[in-house]
Amino acid sequence: MHESLPPVCTRYHRAVELIGRRWAGAIIQALLAGPARFASIRDAIPDISDRMLSERLKELETEGIVTRHVHPDAPVRVEYELTDKGRDLQGALAAIGAWAERWLEPPAPPVRASA
Amino acid sequence: MHESLPPVCTRYHRAVELIGRRWAGAIIQALLAGPARFASIRDAIPDISDRMLSERLKELETEGIVTRHVHPDAPVRVEYELTDKGRDLQGALAAIGAWAERWLEPPAPPVRASA
Repeated sequence: MHESLPPVCTRYHRAVELIGRRWAGAIIQALLAGPARFASIRDAIPDISDRMLSERLKELETEGIVTRHVHPDAPVRVEYELTDKGRDLQGALAAIGAWAERWLEPPAPPVRASA
Repeated sequence: MHESLPPVCTRYHRAVELIGRRWAGAIIQALLAGPARFASIRDAIPDISDRMLSERLKELETEGIVTRHVHPDAPVRVEYELTDKGRDLQGALAAIGAWAERWLEPPAPPVRASA
């Protein structure tokens, strides 16, 4: 026998894993600055590959967090934008960011080859 | 050429993936109720396996989010507890939970075999 804890809410559980999926939080964070093209999002996120970014953007579209706009200019311009549901994550992501600043070590400065 | 976005903070990125790692958010959420034994945590989280819970608890210990107390009773009693760093995640996790209630569909009621 052991004491019992209240069951963890399934929706909460889904939300935290959705945000935490590799790169998803970073993509949402990048898009909070406004609509952006694929290449801009990629450049804002260290180490993400084109394939991974493309996969995650599709998942975030399926989840209703990101929308994809195709502007029929020449050449065609594609932009990604947060939906209301996506933008509403701002508070939660800011709270995670504040916790990270309180508790995680700042990263070591990147080592760059001299130019 | 394309417009550039500010780079996503590395600490934020680490934090969101730490919380979002499969089951980690759920384990922290369960432990916010207070120290608990292995079996109580497992029972609070639908579908988690012993092996996965044990692995995650070790990772959360390594990250300084959970501590493990061994009470030398007979039989030995082991409890897991959030550290200050772990408890300080409460605000961020509550914000995620509130978002989930606003935007995610409630789960279908579980189908239970009649007793």
